[in-house]
Amino acid sequence: MPAPERRDALRTLLRADGLDALLVTDLVGVRYLSGFTGSNAALVVDAAGPGGDVFCTDGRYTTQAAAEVGGLTTVIARACAVECARAVPAGTALGYESDHLTVDAHAALVAAAPGRHLRRAPGLVARLRTVKDDGEVEAVRTACALADEALAGLLADGGIAAGRTELDVALDLETRMRRLGASGPAFETILAAGTHSAIPHHRPTGAELRRGDLVKLDFGALVEGYHSDMTRTFVLGPPAGWQRDLYDLVAASQRAGCDALAPDVEIPAVDAASRDVIVDAGFGEQFVHGLGHGVGLQIHEAPWLSARGTGTIAAGQVVTIEPGVYLEGRGGVRIEDTLVVRADAAQSLTATTRELVEL
Amino acid sequence: MPAPERRDALRTLLRADGLDALLVTDLVGVRYLSGFTGSNAALVVDAAGPGGDVFCTDGRYTTQAAAEVGGLTTVIARACAVECARAVPAGTALGYESDHLTVDAHAALVAAAPGRHLRRAPGLVARLRTVKDDGEVEAVRTACALADEALAGLLADGGIAAGRTELDVALDLETRMRRLGASGPAFETILAAGTHSAIPHHRPTGAELRRGDLVKLDFGALVEGYHSDMTRTFVLGPPAGWQRDLYDLVAASQRAGCDALAPDVEIPAVDAASRDVIVDAGFGEQFVHGLGHGVGLQIHEAPWLSARGTGTIAAGQVVTIEPGVYLEGRGGVRIEDTLVVRADAAQSLTATTRELVEL
Repeated sequence: MPAPERRDALRTLLRADGLDALLVTDLVGVRYLSGFTGSNAALVVDAAGPGGDVFCTDGRYTTQAAAEVGGLTTVIARACAVECARAVPAGTALGYESDHLTVDAHAALVAAAPGRHLRRAPGLVARLRTVKDDGEVEAVRTACALADEALAGLLADGGIAAGRTELDVALDLETRMRRLGASGPAFETILAAGTHSAIPHHRPTGAELRRGDLVKLDFGALVEGYHSDMTRTFVLGPPAGWQRDLYDLVAASQRAGCDALAPDVEIPAVDAASRDVIVDAGFGEQFVHGLGHGVGLQIHEAPWLSARGTGTIAAGQVVTIEPGVYLEGRGGVRIEDTLVVRADAAQSLTATTRELVEL
Repeated sequence: MPAPERRDALRTLLRADGLDALLVTDLVGVRYLSGFTGSNAALVVDAAGPGGDVFCTDGRYTTQAAAEVGGLTTVIARACAVECARAVPAGTALGYESDHLTVDAHAALVAAAPGRHLRRAPGLVARLRTVKDDGEVEAVRTACALADEALAGLLADGGIAAGRTELDVALDLETRMRRLGASGPAFETILAAGTHSAIPHHRPTGAELRRGDLVKLDFGALVEGYHSDMTRTFVLGPPAGWQRDLYDLVAASQRAGCDALAPDVEIPAVDAASRDVIVDAGFGEQFVHGLGHGVGLQIHEAPWLSARGTGTIAAGQVVTIEPGVYLEGRGGVRIEDTLVVRADAAQSLTATTRELVEL
């Protein structure tokens, strides 16, 4: 969907909320609504129609803005939020992203653009962004396929092996993604071997992988601004009984979560479908995080899948399902896919096998 | 300087501002004051002494917090800012980072921790962080040396050459930094050839480098959380007259800026020392950005060196000096070093030659 259509969709939300315009300061939202990918910008979207929309960035990005942002009135200035607020007339009911704008930035708006009626308006663009259009789904699919391919190459070349360090393996995988066309990793790669696998968000170290280790790998590719997210846990050599049992448990939980993912299902019910498998096995305390999250222009974005989550799943959402069980001092298993929700069920965009692979 | 001493230094600032405590929510500040490197945390520093300090992170980071954060009362919870605010007694004059906390997060504090007297307190930790202790200077020096070494290797291997793409060269350089021990690039590498060099913040493309191109390379290494930042502009083959003239102009401007960098000099005077060289040559309009910025745990941090900057330079600050002139449709030159300010003068931490190199 082109950016102008996205701005039109936003106008509908603005009118429903009684806002004359929205000041967009979250750069992810600015990108979504304008196509601009630089590091300083803001945008006003006018509820009345495209004629009132104004985009602002600074002098470093004049050329880039001309190339990326079509059909928007563009102002070149450093204080983008203030310039955009000044661009709407006094008396405007101007929504601002209160979940993004800082207290000081808000005070600066009040001072520099007097007479505008500033109204808290959090999460409007994020709400639009939870449901992906076809182009976005294809972008995430491309990122997922690239990550799958990089991992397949790593495995085929014996890249996950005793004697290599966590850092070696992580760098190897990231370099493969770059060579396949990723602009970078989607986030800091988690490569955790042995007892480190019991740390949910372990950062790779110089520790060597050893025979008998569980090796947890949580990684993704960034392609054209869209992310992928996948976790697999391998074992170096034949698994011990407890490793096999732990793996089977998490795999069953992950399948149950994926199976529960369908339009109109309450988010806590999706979490419960997956979590109950682990709780019933007596490991609820060792599943210390939520079930998943949306994936798109951000690696972590709405919807948030957890027991405390609100709302229902919708077709077109792209989310992860990633249960894990972490046994401190022994090891942990997490299995994660990125899936797109379709009318009837969910389809995984990450395709690497979910069977326990012995390396 | 160990984290407890940094918290003690902060206590002095708090007492001077009449605050009983500071709620630190900016993760960079949390890291600086506690050593914690995870992605969700907050910290309260009690002006009265270390006994009242409280650190909070969530369950994903229990093990990591135990390893990284010594001697701090630690709470495990998801809503870290709220938990930290609740940890101080009602009646406390509790400063918050109004330049970081969002309007909604502030409202959540008001609702969840009633009776605390919330006070705007922007930039206190950032102010501490502008002057680096010896360990920090060495950390930036290490990152700078690593970046120099990676670039030297790239040049020695003929890595910047006609026929390679901008993306090829950027990936080659980043991979070299990783193999030398960087945890990643300090920021998205800028590799801009030919007319692209006239775009200050160009993102590398599949465009091939060609003989006669100016090649602008702005990159850095991230090592143990500290950044380096350096720009060099090369020419592929013998330079045209205008390329040589442009290079000499920017090099003279950059030298003037470095020479002006000394304790107690007003920041606008440093900017002017460098900028005037370019303005006097008639290219002021083509130098579209500030002169430089602080470098440390963030790639861009205070102090901000520009004509509008305030305050004076201090010994121990680590900053960039990076003038540039950009001729749209032709090409641009930027030369940048990262320097540490010493009692008498500034010392460059980046060491690659500033002479025009023909490749």
